[in-house]
Amino acid sequence: MLSETGLKRIQVGSFVSPKYVPQMADTGELFQRIKRKPGVNYTSLWLNDKGFRKALTAHEVDIDPRLLFYPSEAFAQSNNNCSSADMREKQRDWVRLYTEEGYTVDAAYVMTAFGCNLEGPIPQERILDDFRFILQLCEEEDIPVPILVIADTMGWGNPEAVKRMVGALREMSPEARIGMHIHDTRGLGIANLHAALSMGVDMFESSVAGLGGCPFAGHGHARAAGNVCTEDAVFLCHELGIETGIDLDKLIAAAGKAEEIIGVPLMGRVMHTGGLDKYRKAS
Amino acid sequence: MLSETGLKRIQVGSFVSPKYVPQMADTGELFQRIKRKPGVNYTSLWLNDKGFRKALTAHEVDIDPRLLFYPSEAFAQSNNNCSSADMREKQRDWVRLYTEEGYTVDAAYVMTAFGCNLEGPIPQERILDDFRFILQLCEEEDIPVPILVIADTMGWGNPEAVKRMVGALREMSPEARIGMHIHDTRGLGIANLHAALSMGVDMFESSVAGLGGCPFAGHGHARAAGNVCTEDAVFLCHELGIETGIDLDKLIAAAGKAEEIIGVPLMGRVMHTGGLDKYRKAS
Repeated sequence: MLSETGLKRIQVGSFVSPKYVPQMADTGELFQRIKRKPGVNYTSLWLNDKGFRKALTAHEVDIDPRLLFYPSEAFAQSNNNCSSADMREKQRDWVRLYTEEGYTVDAAYVMTAFGCNLEGPIPQERILDDFRFILQLCEEEDIPVPILVIADTMGWGNPEAVKRMVGALREMSPEARIGMHIHDTRGLGIANLHAALSMGVDMFESSVAGLGGCPFAGHGHARAAGNVCTEDAVFLCHELGIETGIDLDKLIAAAGKAEEIIGVPLMGRVMHTGGLDKYRKAS
Repeated sequence: MLSETGLKRIQVGSFVSPKYVPQMADTGELFQRIKRKPGVNYTSLWLNDKGFRKALTAHEVDIDPRLLFYPSEAFAQSNNNCSSADMREKQRDWVRLYTEEGYTVDAAYVMTAFGCNLEGPIPQERILDDFRFILQLCEEEDIPVPILVIADTMGWGNPEAVKRMVGALREMSPEARIGMHIHDTRGLGIANLHAALSMGVDMFESSVAGLGGCPFAGHGHARAAGNVCTEDAVFLCHELGIETGIDLDKLIAAAGKAEEIIGVPLMGRVMHTGGLDKYRKAS
């Protein structure tokens, strides 16, 4: 259903430890079973070399090589079982590994960019320092600068903090494309997305019906910890006059299906009320 | 519980037709039974003279006289059973009625200010025309200009439309206080509130846990049709460094109680995850 909406990139699952994240254990099988639409990328998440190897050997995974930075020491330990500094140094190996396999880095993520449930507030300078490292790494390894992704992993961001962060990052790297990974943990997801849009950010990671959430992020309540809701984000864009190429009604139908499968009310809004086009057409 | 949060004005119920809105039939009894805190206003809604009379004679209702404008013809008929023009003319009688009873108008609302599920889009000029009428009426009746409330009754607003509307209204009346009544029908509630805040709007109507919704607004799905969520709005303000005088934890507890009473998961976010202060204190 998502394939038919006009979305061009769909993250299907994660190649992570089945022991620690049993929810994602059958990602490989899922890749075998999905019906693909030409022109749509079906991607996956991995957090280490082993996961990347799994993605490479799984059935038709569209590889979008990423670098991951963990300015929060506590979250680096909890999510990746290594130190923040080690994780940073490992990224150099990842760049080489991706290059060896014939890929270039697509995006570089700095996690918990506005604060961390496990560690508390993280100074903006610490986040910018990771982005500075990324730019330097790209120069050293002679690779193009990837999309720089500000990841609000724990939902600590607010619209003004988003604008400050995007502004500071743009000042550091005026030509880089900037993306955001947004969680709507505390209700500010769409406001943060709008703030980022207003600063020229044009790549967002969201989830259908607002599903999701990281099991190691220390969220209080699973239902509210997912990514910003795709349908609500698309609705916002359309209302602002931004073309997305996405069919909102089809997306709403997919969200409804997700709710049916999960069997509990999901947090998306426009999925429950519908968009405005029908009223505009009728009038 | 709401009384103990620091909120200064709580709308307790509506004196409307028990035949058409049975949900509000026992508002009078509710006013008798609530435990009051000095300094908190306990207000009610009414839509006609009869309702106002009921509010006057009910037990200790804090009267906040309002004027109501219905630029949508279809919603005027559906919600008030009269024409948009009749409703507008009636407001002159309301001003006189309030004056007779010793009250001054506190706020004037223009409903469906961004569009109407029943009528479709409403041109901005039509909305501004109602506000112009209000200003003229105040001059003619020699009363102070009340809070001018932009009411997004059906959740049609988006952050840029909000900024345009507030800007246009401020241009028309630079000294008036501007308020917003926000519904989070389609997920843009907090983004709209932030947009309004950024334009200097400092009076908002919200509901605990995002409860509510008008039975005559043609919403698709009751769960998603309520006002913007009070806790999420307060959380936003605190994150932006805006003092509200409200204890977020107590507010979250009240929202949890509402969820318990209603018996279905409610749409508030921060009520399910908690604020950020605990993480900041711990670090």
